Amino acid sequence: MMIIMATEATSEQIASVVSRVEAEGLKAHLVFGEERTVLGVVGDIRHVNREQFLRMKGVAGIVPISRPYKLTSREFIPHDSEFPVDGVTIGGSELLIIAGPCSVEDRSQLLETAHAVREAGARALRGGAYKPRTSPYAFQGLGEEGLELLAEAREQTGLPIVTEVMAPELVPLVARYADVLQIGARNMQNYALLHAAGESQKPVLLKRGMSSTIEEFLMAAEYILSHGNRRVILCERGIRTFETATRNTTDINAIPVLKAMTHLPVILDPSHSTGNSDYVPAIARAAVAAGADGLIVEVHNDPDSALSDGVQSLRPERFAELVGQIRTIATAVGRSVPAPRPLPEGFVAGALAAKPAA
Amino acid sequence: MMIIMATEATSEQIASVVSRVEAEGLKAHLVFGEERTVLGVVGDIRHVNREQFLRMKGVAGIVPISRPYKLTSREFIPHDSEFPVDGVTIGGSELLIIAGPCSVEDRSQLLETAHAVREAGARALRGGAYKPRTSPYAFQGLGEEGLELLAEAREQTGLPIVTEVMAPELVPLVARYADVLQIGARNMQNYALLHAAGESQKPVLLKRGMSSTIEEFLMAAEYILSHGNRRVILCERGIRTFETATRNTTDINAIPVLKAMTHLPVILDPSHSTGNSDYVPAIARAAVAAGADGLIVEVHNDPDSALSDGVQSLRPERFAELVGQIRTIATAVGRSVPAPRPLPEGFVAGALAAKPAA
Amino acid sequence: MMIIMATEATSEQIASVVSRVEAEGLKAHLVFGEERTVLGVVGDIRHVNREQFLRMKGVAGIVPISRPYKLTSREFIPHDSEFPVDGVTIGGSELLIIAGPCSVEDRSQLLETAHAVREAGARALRGGAYKPRTSPYAFQGLGEEGLELLAEAREQTGLPIVTEVMAPELVPLVARYADVLQIGARNMQNYALLHAAGESQKPVLLKRGMSSTIEEFLMAAEYILSHGNRRVILCERGIRTFETATRNTTDINAIPVLKAMTHLPVILDPSHSTGNSDYVPAIARAAVAAGADGLIVEVHNDPDSALSDGVQSLRPERFAELVGQIRTIATAVGRSVPAPRPLPEGFVAGALAAKPAA
Amino acid sequence: MMIIMATEATSEQIASVVSRVEAEGLKAHLVFGEERTVLGVVGDIRHVNREQFLRMKGVAGIVPISRPYKLTSREFIPHDSEFPVDGVTIGGSELLIIAGPCSVEDRSQLLETAHAVREAGARALRGGAYKPRTSPYAFQGLGEEGLELLAEAREQTGLPIVTEVMAPELVPLVARYADVLQIGARNMQNYALLHAAGESQKPVLLKRGMSSTIEEFLMAAEYILSHGNRRVILCERGIRTFETATRNTTDINAIPVLKAMTHLPVILDPSHSTGNSDYVPAIARAAVAAGADGLIVEVHNDPDSALSDGVQSLRPERFAELVGQIRTIATAVGRSVPAPRPLPEGFVAGALAAKPAA
Repeated sequence: MMIIMATEATSEQIASVVSRVEAEGLKAHLVFGEERTVLGVVGDIRHVNREQFLRMKGVAGIVPISRPYKLTSREFIPHDSEFPVDGVTIGGSELLIIAGPCSVEDRSQLLETAHAVREAGARALRGGAYKPRTSPYAFQGLGEEGLELLAEAREQTGLPIVTEVMAPELVPLVARYADVLQIGARNMQNYALLHAAGESQKPVLLKRGMSSTIEEFLMAAEYILSHGNRRVILCERGIRTFETATRNTTDINAIPVLKAMTHLPVILDPSHSTGNSDYVPAIARAAVAAGADGLIVEVHNDPDSALSDGVQSLRPERFAELVGQIRTIATAVGRSVPAPRPLPEGFVAGALAAKPAA
Repeated sequence: MMIIMATEATSEQIASVVSRVEAEGLKAHLVFGEERTVLGVVGDIRHVNREQFLRMKGVAGIVPISRPYKLTSREFIPHDSEFPVDGVTIGGSELLIIAGPCSVEDRSQLLETAHAVREAGARALRGGAYKPRTSPYAFQGLGEEGLELLAEAREQTGLPIVTEVMAPELVPLVARYADVLQIGARNMQNYALLHAAGESQKPVLLKRGMSSTIEEFLMAAEYILSHGNRRVILCERGIRTFETATRNTTDINAIPVLKAMTHLPVILDPSHSTGNSDYVPAIARAAVAAGADGLIVEVHNDPDSALSDGVQSLRPERFAELVGQIRTIATAVGRSVPAPRPLPEGFVAGALAAKPAA
Repeated sequence: MMIIMATEATSEQIASVVSRVEAEGLKAHLVFGEERTVLGVVGDIRHVNREQFLRMKGVAGIVPISRPYKLTSREFIPHDSEFPVDGVTIGGSELLIIAGPCSVEDRSQLLETAHAVREAGARALRGGAYKPRTSPYAFQGLGEEGLELLAEAREQTGLPIVTEVMAPELVPLVARYADVLQIGARNMQNYALLHAAGESQKPVLLKRGMSSTIEEFLMAAEYILSHGNRRVILCERGIRTFETATRNTTDINAIPVLKAMTHLPVILDPSHSTGNSDYVPAIARAAVAAGADGLIVEVHNDPDSALSDGVQSLRPERFAELVGQIRTIATAVGRSVPAPRPLPEGFVAGALAAKPAA
Repeated sequence: MMIIMATEATSEQIASVVSRVEAEGLKAHLVFGEERTVLGVVGDIRHVNREQFLRMKGVAGIVPISRPYKLTSREFIPHDSEFPVDGVTIGGSELLIIAGPCSVEDRSQLLETAHAVREAGARALRGGAYKPRTSPYAFQGLGEEGLELLAEAREQTGLPIVTEVMAPELVPLVARYADVLQIGARNMQNYALLHAAGESQKPVLLKRGMSSTIEEFLMAAEYILSHGNRRVILCERGIRTFETATRNTTDINAIPVLKAMTHLPVILDPSHSTGNSDYVPAIARAAVAAGADGLIVEVHNDPDSALSDGVQSLRPERFAELVGQIRTIATAVGRSVPAPRPLPEGFVAGALAAKPAA
């Protein structure tokens, strides 16, 4: 921490700041500049209240030098974190493509879409059973019934499930069905939920809040890691800016910045970051070119009749075409897109009509 | 809802949109412009999925005409909502000034501050027992012990208590102690919490999310009102912008805009909206001049040693001076600041050292 | 300037940075922290290229300590700058209220409005002869004819004229007619124009760019002051944020922040900062309550037929009512609104129909 | 244009709006909804003052239906605009890569860099002779001497020159040397400059203002096109948001959005949009993957000693590596990067030391 004195600070004021620094068990190194004096404070300041110095007479400002997060930082773990989820590796040289509908609406919608995205090359299935909605009058999701349908889709396709959990008390229930717990953008600083997700020891897909800085994003991840749960996937999903031509502004810079600052895998959600299926393929390609470890894309077998986010959902055939383009781009950045995951034994592609062995 | 057709839309495409509108039980009125055709859609569209139209060929856009919130709107209730909280009226001609420390730290800090703000003219006491903190390593509040201290402060000063609740499962506990439940900016779209606060039937002070639009703010209030709980106070607390000279940017425009759009009382938090006690008095005065129904201000008996937000807390004497200025400004806008609330029987001003009748 | 070394910086890298600092004729003071080393650099760094250090191996960042502006800063001139413009004092205890139409449209519109704002208490007249318009197809102003009408309005009412200049080559022409040159928000960083305005030695009303930080605003003023022209009035006019309920977001915090950082007078333009005449009075009052030295308000004798900005223009009677409210608020902050400026000899109030002595 | 009546509008008020619409020679179609009435206004409203309606009693709002720009829109010219600049085609299937130093500093710096970028595959040379600088005390460029050096670099390498012009009166001078006039972000709404650039009939590279919407960006281009000059290249260079981890936020969404809305070529400047050479390659790749028609990249032969923007400049070898990656990505989107442009007769690669034939 550096304490910057005002240009007009007196030597008594400086001495008084030095005394308080020492009273905290720290050391102060003085640098006398032409315009002002600066104190370099050395020692373990983790539990020191920095604000007390800001209130002292003659102090103009404080510059923190250490980063506020630790477990999340690349200085703590210099190599990329890599971990398996139900046979799929996350954070390695293979890109992780997650796809599926915004909401789980019914059995045939979910199973049709799940089979289609598996065939196109997706490695995990997304789908919301609990939906955060701006309006209390909008469709709020199927709840546990949706979770059961997701489990059936996993059984049929072999794809691990990524689904959102919105309240701490729902973590145990959702964790019983899901392979990856998703924490949505609106809940990025819902600390009770972050604690519960950390304690669950399940992999967590954490979305960036729409007006959260990258540093706050890493601090939110730190909450989860502080419970010993290191399997966190960071997801850029667009930030809020003055521009209204798209639903959000994709912060593509966040991809290389996050890769430089943290060891955790970083993916991008082009569906929410644009809000328009016309722009999703361009931004999905951009994310991979920028170094993302994966994508989470909304795909719907019939976007026109979707109960939510139909406008930003790709049709399965457009998604398959996109995966092909990404396969080429991946080679330019030393990554690859694996071949489609094989179906579980006893299931055939697209055979969603019949419940197996019912 | 207006459906805007593309300039190149064919008459078949227009006919197809009209058919679907009618299939939903609605009526379409066509307006043929020089450049394009527009459909005015009439009927109850509350449960119609508007996005289906956006996906149709030839459709360029949709313009919603109705507002998405209802119970919150001034069109629904044209007069100002006014309600009592423990003898203090909110939303009337008298301004509601809430003051107190950011966090409850210990008994003497809380009681000293509570007595001081009462004497200066505050009508309610704020203080956090549960604190949302960006860092998992920062002070997280005293929890229930803090709630007990708040109850004691109410007993001594007669001031009703405003305190934050951060998770739905804590609502019953906090509601046992608090007179007004505060929902913080980070939780403005924590829907589980909004539901729980709505069901509690307690007055709620709802803070605007730091990157929430005014419309989203009203939608969040609508969640609470939809449970039949109409005692909601809206609180502007600064939004996030590119400017870094202050912690947040006070959206002073939000005061007259909210007063025009909703019947709910609107207050401002100059402490968080500036993040700097040097600027708090100016912005507090501005809020009242702009038509706010009240203020919530951080005051600390010893800001230099505060465990949180010391930099933005006023000393009691500076707060008292501010209340004096506000008293003058209030007259320019037809409002008033009442005299200090009398002490409960058996208590004397500033007599915080001894627990009464213990 | 502080140079922050990376945690993993080697002692060779630190030594190499120290050498380069010394090669620039500066001194480096080393502070060895637990996590990293910081160098305090002392000496005159005004002409040193700081970026060279950022590129050196082992350097994590640079923290500037000095402010980049000088003539504009309150550290340079500790008292408020105060200067007269044609008999009206700016920056003193009396508030400066500037009012008038967005654009000069015709003689009767301008003269009617000018007389009305003088009677209500305005001390200067605004009106645009050259208009910056987003669309090349919109009304671009009357040009020199507009300037002549403004001169006539000054002759009739005694009010000094504030009008915008949009290009450096127009500065001499506009300066012949205007008492104060206005530089608009879009031109805040039009450096050729800032230089020309500085050289003109005319008082300048400089508007903040809609996405400029307060520091950039002060740097733009520094351009003007660096030509020896210290008569600069800073004008907050709203910034661009994600909120769309109003045309801009009034940065009310900028008022106390600017007053703390600079000695120059600071005024607010509630017309552009809200874009809606319904909200103008509230924000005008707020500005004065927050400590502004004045206001610039759009007033139009017939807003319904205005060629530009009619929606945000006040009618004269609403403006007069506002001046009354401001008179009360001013007393709460130790300021005052003077009585209307007397008419020049030979003119009578509202006598606009006849050209005098024609 | 749609005129939205308030829910409480009376039938007299509606009739009065209809009368005024008809007085303007337009037709009003009424749509009576359950909540409110909407008027569809038909006719040529280009020269109608829309605001007059907003001021009428009972009117709640106005929704423009037509886009405010015309010549720039894809509805006006449905195919991609493509034009040659000194033998280099812009807007076709080949990507246009522009590279060079931020500022022209001296002969050897410019020529070394020019030869290096040509060899790596750049098709045009950038370099600033006139520099917009936030501080009046910073290096402001070499002026005409810089233009002469750029002309020599073109002679030696065959690369056309892109350089910034900052004031309307400098357009003729800069146009004598430059092949493409660059208008910087700070000047995007400097209308006098846009007019002068339009009249010059030179190709113009127009940078997006850092807080300009995409619509305002297209309106600024419309100013240039309205002078009959259609050779405009649009350049996204990052927007200002709350995020401070990078200098600007690259609005990557703007690439597909602009390609959908306009026929003009769209390029991206990853140097300014990130402000950090570590992130430039990732964002350059992303832009091409998203469908950009080209890039403008800062390259410096010795970034450590650059007089401006050294931190965001690539070294030539890093730039060459980037061009290789882009060549692969281009194939995924049906584009290509041509082989290096051959040297003009009589020049040899890297032979910058000797002035030829001097």
